[in-house]
Amino acid sequence: MRKLIRGGTVVNASESATADVLVDGETVVGVGRFDGVDAEVIDATGCFVLPGAIDNHTHLSMPFGGTWSADDYDTGTRAAAAGGTTCIVDFALQMHRGGLRSSLEEWMGRAEGAAHVDYGFHMAITNADAATIADMSSMVDEGITSFKVFLAYPNVLMVTDDQYLAVLERARDLEALTMVHCENGHAIAHLVSKALAAGQTDPIHHALTRPETMEAEATGRAVRLAGFAGAPVFVVHVSCKAAADEIIRARAAGARAYGETCIQYLFNSVDDLRRPGFEGARYVCSPPLRDAANQPHLWDALRLDHLQIVSTDHCPFNDEQKRLGLGDFSKIPNGLAAIQHRLPMLWEHGVRAGRLSPNRVVEITSTAVARMFGLERKGWIGAGADADIVVFDPARRHVFSCATSLMNVDYDIYEGREVAGSPRLTLSRGTVVWDDGRICTRPGHGQYVRRAVFDARRL
Amino acid sequence: MRKLIRGGTVVNASESATADVLVDGETVVGVGRFDGVDAEVIDATGCFVLPGAIDNHTHLSMPFGGTWSADDYDTGTRAAAAGGTTCIVDFALQMHRGGLRSSLEEWMGRAEGAAHVDYGFHMAITNADAATIADMSSMVDEGITSFKVFLAYPNVLMVTDDQYLAVLERARDLEALTMVHCENGHAIAHLVSKALAAGQTDPIHHALTRPETMEAEATGRAVRLAGFAGAPVFVVHVSCKAAADEIIRARAAGARAYGETCIQYLFNSVDDLRRPGFEGARYVCSPPLRDAANQPHLWDALRLDHLQIVSTDHCPFNDEQKRLGLGDFSKIPNGLAAIQHRLPMLWEHGVRAGRLSPNRVVEITSTAVARMFGLERKGWIGAGADADIVVFDPARRHVFSCATSLMNVDYDIYEGREVAGSPRLTLSRGTVVWDDGRICTRPGHGQYVRRAVFDARRL
Amino acid sequence: MRKLIRGGTVVNASESATADVLVDGETVVGVGRFDGVDAEVIDATGCFVLPGAIDNHTHLSMPFGGTWSADDYDTGTRAAAAGGTTCIVDFALQMHRGGLRSSLEEWMGRAEGAAHVDYGFHMAITNADAATIADMSSMVDEGITSFKVFLAYPNVLMVTDDQYLAVLERARDLEALTMVHCENGHAIAHLVSKALAAGQTDPIHHALTRPETMEAEATGRAVRLAGFAGAPVFVVHVSCKAAADEIIRARAAGARAYGETCIQYLFNSVDDLRRPGFEGARYVCSPPLRDAANQPHLWDALRLDHLQIVSTDHCPFNDEQKRLGLGDFSKIPNGLAAIQHRLPMLWEHGVRAGRLSPNRVVEITSTAVARMFGLERKGWIGAGADADIVVFDPARRHVFSCATSLMNVDYDIYEGREVAGSPRLTLSRGTVVWDDGRICTRPGHGQYVRRAVFDARRL
Amino acid sequence: MRKLIRGGTVVNASESATADVLVDGETVVGVGRFDGVDAEVIDATGCFVLPGAIDNHTHLSMPFGGTWSADDYDTGTRAAAAGGTTCIVDFALQMHRGGLRSSLEEWMGRAEGAAHVDYGFHMAITNADAATIADMSSMVDEGITSFKVFLAYPNVLMVTDDQYLAVLERARDLEALTMVHCENGHAIAHLVSKALAAGQTDPIHHALTRPETMEAEATGRAVRLAGFAGAPVFVVHVSCKAAADEIIRARAAGARAYGETCIQYLFNSVDDLRRPGFEGARYVCSPPLRDAANQPHLWDALRLDHLQIVSTDHCPFNDEQKRLGLGDFSKIPNGLAAIQHRLPMLWEHGVRAGRLSPNRVVEITSTAVARMFGLERKGWIGAGADADIVVFDPARRHVFSCATSLMNVDYDIYEGREVAGSPRLTLSRGTVVWDDGRICTRPGHGQYVRRAVFDARRL
Repeated sequence: MRKLIRGGTVVNASESATADVLVDGETVVGVGRFDGVDAEVIDATGCFVLPGAIDNHTHLSMPFGGTWSADDYDTGTRAAAAGGTTCIVDFALQMHRGGLRSSLEEWMGRAEGAAHVDYGFHMAITNADAATIADMSSMVDEGITSFKVFLAYPNVLMVTDDQYLAVLERARDLEALTMVHCENGHAIAHLVSKALAAGQTDPIHHALTRPETMEAEATGRAVRLAGFAGAPVFVVHVSCKAAADEIIRARAAGARAYGETCIQYLFNSVDDLRRPGFEGARYVCSPPLRDAANQPHLWDALRLDHLQIVSTDHCPFNDEQKRLGLGDFSKIPNGLAAIQHRLPMLWEHGVRAGRLSPNRVVEITSTAVARMFGLERKGWIGAGADADIVVFDPARRHVFSCATSLMNVDYDIYEGREVAGSPRLTLSRGTVVWDDGRICTRPGHGQYVRRAVFDARRL
Repeated sequence: MRKLIRGGTVVNASESATADVLVDGETVVGVGRFDGVDAEVIDATGCFVLPGAIDNHTHLSMPFGGTWSADDYDTGTRAAAAGGTTCIVDFALQMHRGGLRSSLEEWMGRAEGAAHVDYGFHMAITNADAATIADMSSMVDEGITSFKVFLAYPNVLMVTDDQYLAVLERARDLEALTMVHCENGHAIAHLVSKALAAGQTDPIHHALTRPETMEAEATGRAVRLAGFAGAPVFVVHVSCKAAADEIIRARAAGARAYGETCIQYLFNSVDDLRRPGFEGARYVCSPPLRDAANQPHLWDALRLDHLQIVSTDHCPFNDEQKRLGLGDFSKIPNGLAAIQHRLPMLWEHGVRAGRLSPNRVVEITSTAVARMFGLERKGWIGAGADADIVVFDPARRHVFSCATSLMNVDYDIYEGREVAGSPRLTLSRGTVVWDDGRICTRPGHGQYVRRAVFDARRL
Repeated sequence: MRKLIRGGTVVNASESATADVLVDGETVVGVGRFDGVDAEVIDATGCFVLPGAIDNHTHLSMPFGGTWSADDYDTGTRAAAAGGTTCIVDFALQMHRGGLRSSLEEWMGRAEGAAHVDYGFHMAITNADAATIADMSSMVDEGITSFKVFLAYPNVLMVTDDQYLAVLERARDLEALTMVHCENGHAIAHLVSKALAAGQTDPIHHALTRPETMEAEATGRAVRLAGFAGAPVFVVHVSCKAAADEIIRARAAGARAYGETCIQYLFNSVDDLRRPGFEGARYVCSPPLRDAANQPHLWDALRLDHLQIVSTDHCPFNDEQKRLGLGDFSKIPNGLAAIQHRLPMLWEHGVRAGRLSPNRVVEITSTAVARMFGLERKGWIGAGADADIVVFDPARRHVFSCATSLMNVDYDIYEGREVAGSPRLTLSRGTVVWDDGRICTRPGHGQYVRRAVFDARRL
Repeated sequence: MRKLIRGGTVVNASESATADVLVDGETVVGVGRFDGVDAEVIDATGCFVLPGAIDNHTHLSMPFGGTWSADDYDTGTRAAAAGGTTCIVDFALQMHRGGLRSSLEEWMGRAEGAAHVDYGFHMAITNADAATIADMSSMVDEGITSFKVFLAYPNVLMVTDDQYLAVLERARDLEALTMVHCENGHAIAHLVSKALAAGQTDPIHHALTRPETMEAEATGRAVRLAGFAGAPVFVVHVSCKAAADEIIRARAAGARAYGETCIQYLFNSVDDLRRPGFEGARYVCSPPLRDAANQPHLWDALRLDHLQIVSTDHCPFNDEQKRLGLGDFSKIPNGLAAIQHRLPMLWEHGVRAGRLSPNRVVEITSTAVARMFGLERKGWIGAGADADIVVFDPARRHVFSCATSLMNVDYDIYEGREVAGSPRLTLSRGTVVWDDGRICTRPGHGQYVRRAVFDARRL
């Protein structure tokens, strides 16, 4: 049975048009006027019909600081679909020296049969020994075409610059993309020690001990070493002007350097960490939330394509988990719950506020993500594309709240904030996952997606 | 009667797909699989189906240095169509103080009933007196939403910085885009005088007296004054790294500064001006052709969207006209014939050479041009778009030559060069203009296009 | 009869020492311990013994806007000596097309027999026609080794960029230094017109119509064209960070670009132009006084030698003269009275405030000035130098006031401000000019100084 | 008995004069004309009389890679004096965790009674544990007011960024200067491993595995972290434009960042490492010698004060020692013998070649060194200064050679090269050390110099 999404405004990255979208099975087969077609009709009059958003930065069922992020692949992807996200690329994390295979299997196992939307994996390398480097090609064979390293979190996740360089070189040879968390781990460790020794234990000190300089320094180092290796590089979660400027500088010199920011850096600020009680702990993530003066620069960077993507870095922890850091901010699990909120927030504050066109919002949440990470059948609405589609109703008012959130967290960082529009319907490969308040799929609808190798010419 | 372009690879700026394109009258009504549709079928198997290219920088029937550019709106648009260009935005030139209306009418009169593809106009302001500034709004009313000024050619076309600023401010208020030719006219005049006084009269001295510094200086000045005025600005024909760097620097700081290069700066160099006899005169344009070392940087700038467009600055003169500058390079009419060559050259040296994707070539020759200059129904293939379509056959070998050129010039700057692919069919609003070697339309098929106001969010 | 300045701290640009200074006639013949020497002893115990300050930017008896600057070479140099300045380089101004000679003679005539300290001239070129360019060598023959042009004041003083380039090239060939007033004259004229048309006539609009951008743009243009010409360039009266940054950028790339600021940009701000009544007019100069946020950057630039000199741009007008601009700020004569105030103000706010060492104050007011402008026997205290010496008493309290000013102006811009130290004694070529409140010389003591050609290696 | 150096041209950093220099005991007591003075006369007619050069970067009796640098404090300072250097600041190296005292004593012991010219020490911190940080104040008490860290040589000398930051903060509080060797140790280790694994064992691979990027990256990081700490920083041995540019960028933003280059980076290049046989090993130092295209930029940086000092990094090894690295370039002891060569080479290629004035050569080899490192009585010739004086004869031809070298090395890197002038006489605190080919002092004449704390205003 075919579906016809009728009468909406189809918004792709580079054009908009009033048109019908014809879906046959899992695939879009036509965009245009289809008057006498035999198909189940979905009326999209007055709505925007968007390619499903793709979130390339999520951490579901992720071990961190002695606990686990609170969303698994079931709850996390329900929330994703409710927010208009039809594909995620999650991070598998190397847990053992000497290779990557077993870690991938662990993550694959957790996701299998659980997800409501499609998913892929990046592989985060935490120990770039020779065997691990050698194992990178087998990851690419599995469709894992991006690798991440951390320049932060010494003794836990951080790699030294020799390891980073080894990853860059091998990824380059495999036509894979290297992603990098840019904060100077050692310098931050020094500042954290000083703060704790001085009795500065509250959540705000998480931000004060991870200053912008340390992100900017590591970003500059990361793009420079990538340039040396002749490898493309993607800087994750750029939080501030100083860091963005390093990417801009590299690109001005012709480098294949790319970056994303996340919604929390556009909509939250360091002031959130000063909230009374221990509420500030909810806003602890790394890099930390910054002075709000950075936000206009991040919008500019998105407008001018200095940054290409907005993701969420979704990594939720409940209040109880956050309380692991009571009396020692350095023990607060890092992460915010945001997977459901990206598209409504960007539409409200991007499109409605006049900062970005609907097309650009589609580009930074879907099209560019698909191109960057090799999701060949996703990121646009057109013949041949996966029927990952969102019917976004600009008049479907939404109030953010624990009550309306499908995320498995006992608070909401935007509690009580309201937006004018939100997704009414979300299709994943032709199947309705989210229908105006209800999840319609069973766990396991979402499938693993093999990703194509990196090609800078797509960007 | 509808047309169905069947089986080709439809290439838009942000995606490609194998699909049919259904055209009803002047408009695309669907892209997808259309199996039982009643329509004239155009077989595009093995071909790319592209949105028609748009050339935003042409000078047809243009008075310059006591003569006229050799192509009129008939011959020029025939050549355009043969090269896959289905729309041009030509420059009307203010000829009289005190207003713009009569100049527009003059240009409108020349174009009317002559063109084979659609056309619009920019208005070039050469005397920004108060009445002229006041008249700008009437241009916008006519769909002329971009204005050009020259910082070069003192006493002929050049405006002083007060005039430039007045144009920027008024254009900003009218939501129009200011375009600017960036060379320091006075400084160049000094260098030209010195050269002529020293008996340096050959064509090469055209280039030597217009050094990169003078373009870079004027570019820096232009984007800075635009930033001061809070006005968007488009730098035409960026020829070298030093000038591109000024745009990059402005954009790095968040400015709404844009730029194009032209094919001659990608494929020709200053060495062409040293050709024996007076052949170098054929390659005289301003800014002049540069050292070839600039070319990789221009490709980089296109790849990273530091420059958004490749146009032609088509302004052809025959050898006899060029000989006006025998014995005095400063009297050589400025301009090259290139309107027919853009798409085949960019496909060969961009796509086939691995520098750019087909999508990016579509973007820089069509989609971005349409967005930049407010051509709302052009620049992509999809429901609702004008059926301006090129069937580009990657196996249709083409040899550049006076013999194969439809341009009204008695030589060809790429004579004898060969490319693997070229346009087989060009449709303008649903009508076949170019069919594998033959022009099928009569003069007048092409119509004037009113353009929408500028919106930076489209870019 | 010899003089022995005994027991002070001799401060040169690169070292300080407690030592005696032995003067024989007009010249220093030794610095050290001179116990049994037969000489008139000047006790300098507890004082600093400084090389006389040199002011390279003064306008005495200068015609401007239909009036004359209020100090002539007698009154102006009295005030200079009282403030510790023992040499000035004033601006002669080309008054006629076709050459410079008559203008120099006019200025020479006004200065001759009038001055109390030595003086030289720069020649300001306002019309760089061929005869004028040819005449530059005769200026160098007279010891005029620096030429100034204005990129501001169209139709009055401004040269176009071709003229500027001609001056740069000729100066380079003559080993002379080109000085340049950097503001975009045309763009400012536009802003002035708009303001007046809008009824914005108060002094503050002088500043608002000459924004930092226009100085920065012209500075960038000036250093770039100088770089093109291979000529050294000196930017006068840098008022703001944006302009200083252009010099810094040029120097970072290896250019021979230099600059000064003036004391008013360190100690006054745009707020002074908002003073009630017409008092703001006293603070009208060009470039205008800026937002105080620029001041720390100017101090930084001085500390790091990005700027090499602090001068005064002394160009005094009485209230009555300022009132020429009542109802039209553009008619207010431009200039402040500052020639007497530089050294005490810099000592107080530079040395005493901990920003600069005594050595650096000597360097930026004397040593670097002498090197920049070819005053071979001035700028330091040592054997062979002119005995231009200041005994600066750090405990000689001074209150700025019309009552204590020797300048020929009926107000003082620092009225009532107090500093801890000031010059007790000023010697010019061995003769005491200023002795603790009294001028001891007759007009004519000061002599014309021929200056050596420019040599970048001195700097 | 007093000494009178008569009739030479006394060259200080900011002026030159023909004058006599009167020395009483260890101190200069006067500069000027001293006709009837009772003193031993040293005729300096036709010569330049310079303040003794100071070499702030030497490694005498230094353990490295299982061997010792070949010059001790006797031979090394003889050579220094012969080359016009009258003071060195050598590096003491922390040899044990938990403090600095014992290491200082070890170095003090080796130097005591051995040197012919005065000496001080920097303390190199290789393990910045808490006890070591605490011990820094005791070093300052001893007159050790500069500390060095290495960002290169992991597992041997390198500190991590947390340690570097701890040193910066403590040094800042003690008003001491932090010096830093900038190369990315980890990244280089990776490149070295790859090279050795590929059988690339020759000396040239020392250079190829330490590319400019790795120095530039570490330099950028070093100045940025120093800026964060609010601490002044001195980058040692800047070898290339890319690294210098990082310092320039920091200074352009107002940072207290300083740097030196060494003569080998001005006069040698990477090509020296390609010399046949194992001769290339003689030229192995870190950072390595670079492509000669860097040299003009280093000269520019010296001319414009972007770099403030030229030192030698003297660290000599004989051929036999260099052969420790036969078959494995990474085992070649790092260092060149240059302590004797600095002044003659800079005079020849700086002054005689027209690049620098005699004053600037004095500044970068003596005056600025004294100011940077708190040698209060050294760095100029004037009353009150130590009588560290060089009579430099511009006509005293010198041929570099093992035969004329006093350095304890069995080859000379400039063997056979000739310069027009050289030091004829070197005085250390009034005593002749070097007299036209002969060392006149006994070991122990040179004394330890306590240095004053750092003061940015001196620079």
